[in-house]
Amino acid sequence: MPDSPPATRTYSYLGPTGTFTEAALAQVPEAAGQVWKSVNNVGEAFDDVTSGRSVAAMIAIENSVEGGVSATQDALASIPNLRIVGEYLVRVQFALVARPGIELKDVNVVNAHPVAYAQCRGWLEANLPAHGHIPSTSNVASALALFENDLADAAIAPPRIVDHHELNVLAENIGDNQNAVTRFVLVSRTNRLPEPTGADKTSIIAELPADRSGALLELLEQFSTRGVNLSLLQSRPIGDALGRYRFIIDADGHILDERVADALLGVRRFSPRVIFLGSYPRADRAQVEYVDRYDDGVFIEARDWLRSLVSGEPGA
Amino acid sequence: MPDSPPATRTYSYLGPTGTFTEAALAQVPEAAGQVWKSVNNVGEAFDDVTSGRSVAAMIAIENSVEGGVSATQDALASIPNLRIVGEYLVRVQFALVARPGIELKDVNVVNAHPVAYAQCRGWLEANLPAHGHIPSTSNVASALALFENDLADAAIAPPRIVDHHELNVLAENIGDNQNAVTRFVLVSRTNRLPEPTGADKTSIIAELPADRSGALLELLEQFSTRGVNLSLLQSRPIGDALGRYRFIIDADGHILDERVADALLGVRRFSPRVIFLGSYPRADRAQVEYVDRYDDGVFIEARDWLRSLVSGEPGA
Amino acid sequence: MPDSPPATRTYSYLGPTGTFTEAALAQVPEAAGQVWKSVNNVGEAFDDVTSGRSVAAMIAIENSVEGGVSATQDALASIPNLRIVGEYLVRVQFALVARPGIELKDVNVVNAHPVAYAQCRGWLEANLPAHGHIPSTSNVASALALFENDLADAAIAPPRIVDHHELNVLAENIGDNQNAVTRFVLVSRTNRLPEPTGADKTSIIAELPADRSGALLELLEQFSTRGVNLSLLQSRPIGDALGRYRFIIDADGHILDERVADALLGVRRFSPRVIFLGSYPRADRAQVEYVDRYDDGVFIEARDWLRSLVSGEPGA
Amino acid sequence: MPDSPPATRTYSYLGPTGTFTEAALAQVPEAAGQVWKSVNNVGEAFDDVTSGRSVAAMIAIENSVEGGVSATQDALASIPNLRIVGEYLVRVQFALVARPGIELKDVNVVNAHPVAYAQCRGWLEANLPAHGHIPSTSNVASALALFENDLADAAIAPPRIVDHHELNVLAENIGDNQNAVTRFVLVSRTNRLPEPTGADKTSIIAELPADRSGALLELLEQFSTRGVNLSLLQSRPIGDALGRYRFIIDADGHILDERVADALLGVRRFSPRVIFLGSYPRADRAQVEYVDRYDDGVFIEARDWLRSLVSGEPGA
Repeated sequence: MPDSPPATRTYSYLGPTGTFTEAALAQVPEAAGQVWKSVNNVGEAFDDVTSGRSVAAMIAIENSVEGGVSATQDALASIPNLRIVGEYLVRVQFALVARPGIELKDVNVVNAHPVAYAQCRGWLEANLPAHGHIPSTSNVASALALFENDLADAAIAPPRIVDHHELNVLAENIGDNQNAVTRFVLVSRTNRLPEPTGADKTSIIAELPADRSGALLELLEQFSTRGVNLSLLQSRPIGDALGRYRFIIDADGHILDERVADALLGVRRFSPRVIFLGSYPRADRAQVEYVDRYDDGVFIEARDWLRSLVSGEPGA
Repeated sequence: MPDSPPATRTYSYLGPTGTFTEAALAQVPEAAGQVWKSVNNVGEAFDDVTSGRSVAAMIAIENSVEGGVSATQDALASIPNLRIVGEYLVRVQFALVARPGIELKDVNVVNAHPVAYAQCRGWLEANLPAHGHIPSTSNVASALALFENDLADAAIAPPRIVDHHELNVLAENIGDNQNAVTRFVLVSRTNRLPEPTGADKTSIIAELPADRSGALLELLEQFSTRGVNLSLLQSRPIGDALGRYRFIIDADGHILDERVADALLGVRRFSPRVIFLGSYPRADRAQVEYVDRYDDGVFIEARDWLRSLVSGEPGA
Repeated sequence: MPDSPPATRTYSYLGPTGTFTEAALAQVPEAAGQVWKSVNNVGEAFDDVTSGRSVAAMIAIENSVEGGVSATQDALASIPNLRIVGEYLVRVQFALVARPGIELKDVNVVNAHPVAYAQCRGWLEANLPAHGHIPSTSNVASALALFENDLADAAIAPPRIVDHHELNVLAENIGDNQNAVTRFVLVSRTNRLPEPTGADKTSIIAELPADRSGALLELLEQFSTRGVNLSLLQSRPIGDALGRYRFIIDADGHILDERVADALLGVRRFSPRVIFLGSYPRADRAQVEYVDRYDDGVFIEARDWLRSLVSGEPGA
Repeated sequence: MPDSPPATRTYSYLGPTGTFTEAALAQVPEAAGQVWKSVNNVGEAFDDVTSGRSVAAMIAIENSVEGGVSATQDALASIPNLRIVGEYLVRVQFALVARPGIELKDVNVVNAHPVAYAQCRGWLEANLPAHGHIPSTSNVASALALFENDLADAAIAPPRIVDHHELNVLAENIGDNQNAVTRFVLVSRTNRLPEPTGADKTSIIAELPADRSGALLELLEQFSTRGVNLSLLQSRPIGDALGRYRFIIDADGHILDERVADALLGVRRFSPRVIFLGSYPRADRAQVEYVDRYDDGVFIEARDWLRSLVSGEPGA
């Protein structure tokens, strides 16, 4: 992924060791054996990338339960020259952990990252109805805090945390949704497009012009009239006033697919501001399906036809 | 208009002398001083053009009262390599004429072209409620028939017919609609496109794929999503079965306008069969209006943007 | 069909005996044994109905080759209180007929109704390339004219004409399209709706407001957003100026089907002028297909839900 | 707002005293002089309402900078029988506060609610580049924590916090966006609809059926085809799998406005699950604008027309 691979490459990720983000980075073959740099938040991670300290950063972008990660989406909308070059899925499982000697009946206060806390609400209400909550900055920081002070008795953390720290699991699989998945993206500075694989995604961020409801319809039509399906459409406030939004869009296909390129042209003409975040292979490797009339060949044939009309070739 | 102008050029028109079609041909500067060939029907006129006997033919294509001229539309859909190179409007006024000695009270039977007859129905019912009707093949043939036999006592014809033949006007302006206009097109074989003037029309014929109601919506969206207005949309049966239609479409703008070209690409991809009939100056010389976002510059900028993304230029 | 069936009922049709219109009327069980009144044109037929002289009139409304019958469509748009109560299909076959003693090689001039003439053009060009054409007012009048004068040598007529008149068939099946079909409608004055059969059509005529291309899209959406398919959509000029159109629409389903009723409400709100021509059984008796979400039950459930919200019922 | 006003009514709000939520509650005339109950989170607030402990709860639902409040939106989607009865706007201003004796140069660690923290990122990076962050559960809890332990040196809080607690302002207006506004809703259990005022909003939550991109287009068309503008459209994951969304929608107008009622009918028929959250006066009191053709009278006239057709009234 780096423009010119150095002897050793650095990858940033939301740490410390043991986070789901680290698990996502472990899925990247090119990152094996390289330097993995733990950072504290999305801003640091993107800083590493834009400054060149890291060749790429692994970032959570969407959670199947909690939705889009606003900080990531807003950073992608405001920091120029970033490109998504890969997508990874990690199943999200939570355990309640505590230092040795503490049992479930002893737990009064729970340290947990707010997103993790929200995903375990059901279990907590059923099993620890009277608990208090102290928020942490990551799913591992919650557990580490148990060693720093006595404010909390237990923490919500990934189950593998016990491989790295002297902690016991008080309860496993306490997430309310057993199918919870977090989607991560690998973000780089490169302008080089990954090759189309037939199972790609294209991500953009587009602002809507003036009037909203009709404008969104028009934005969506840029894709539907070219047979391009959207797997993500999420609104985020632009931030300058209530009611002004930009949209985070994941479209099926690669910018080198004719129908996607044509849809992007339509979006560019329509939107006062559009950011191309990249075309990259889908995490699930599912081939993009589309009806025949949106095949590359159809686009090329139509262009040839138009060209012959314009050039005045006989018999066109 | 002809590919290589001969010393003398021939123009075909639905005759004989005195028809509205002749009046339309009189509006063509290039036709002045050339050979004007009177023909009996649309088929003959197009034959002259495709065989090269004439450089162009003037053809009625739509009447403001009676609608599209089916024979013209169907011929344009089936004869290849025809191009519309100009559009002309003629106000349609009818007179009731008779040979000298005949007065209105003597009229029992009226000879008239069916389209003209239909446009004068109101006057005829009010003034000649008991009349009979003999159909003719043109608005002048109706009058000439008065000299050939005694079947009719009067004829519906253009008022100027009396300049050419020994006929009297029994009643003027007998058309039910005082604003009736017929639209004519000059049809040639050339592949050369007239220069864009900013006040152009583009005519096509497009068949719909399979399912109809949704398909027509999609066809129309090819234009509306590019800000291209349609001044004509007319269905004609394809002829092989009930419920199968092609559409005759006049779109505002020239094929060399980016938004029109892009709409044509969309139509070509969508339609199982599309015929480009030409881009040519509008008869009314009204500048095409469109909102800024469909300006040529917007299309060009978007293409440049896409190209820079695809080529991986830095900072794109 | 009549509001109160008289001892004997009169049905009008475009005659004389032997026309395709008569064949359509023969398909109406209620017309059997009643008075069949031959008329000369659509205007007369509708006059009979509006004056009460006839309980209904059989009228050609669309031909699979030549398209909509403008005179019928325009009359339905301008004469109030007419209702289509039934639809009938007749296969259109043409023969070239002549008086005894005349053979094909003797034929110089052909008498034919213009629509029939257009449908036999291919055969005529191949077999009688030098022929002349005299237009007639019906497909039977063409043949009868052979007995009235010597202007034509042969006529295009329905093959069964030889059952009624002393004529020989010179050539059979001379129509260019062997599947040509004409669609007829039975038109009455009644306000009573035929019972829904599950295989119905609803016909309307709707004018478009102001701007056209977007307006037609909106008109079509009234149907598509309720899952109502259109089997006919035809533009006709309103007649007051070029570019102003009304649309003749046949929608699948009955006005008593919830989705059709809701679409009609949408059209009525949208269109400056809409004429309901009737709901009636389809000629082909094909059951109307629609996806489940447009079932009557879905509409009724939604209305109940809204009503409970508005009334403030608990638990709504 | 309560079904039967008790002697004293209780209103729940996210406390403690001094929060923006309290400022929103202060805008409700009916709440003046009643019991205001401070709660710790959205769940508690809704519990108070569903259990009847409170007649209503004031809840933050959208922030102009950070976007929709997921916890609120998800709770409204899952807790039955809640109704929004009012909307309120509060300008969001933040101060950095500390206990007496602490100056800006002494600040190493900042306690702040994550949303407030995110909104002050720019100021913090510029003025306290090396700071640490401890998250709190509310914008007041952050300040109160300064009295409880020494973990943080300063807190981000509403400026008025100094009226209630012995705290000094170290820096004012540290929010990155000076126009930041939070939108609050008053949520009750009543089924009674507030009277239409001409300046109303209607809130719903709707799930999309099966396929997504086309489905969202169809959902939006339910509003656009009735001339109903949307002021909010936000996606939230349903939570069972990636790529499944529900939409939070604020539509201009009241359920007793015909066009809104008709749009709701369309949504109900279309969506597998739709929740009506209420029609209530807009905070900004801006009259809803709509084009004439979507006026109540147009809907009523169309219904009368349809009724007369169905009933077979003469002359319909």
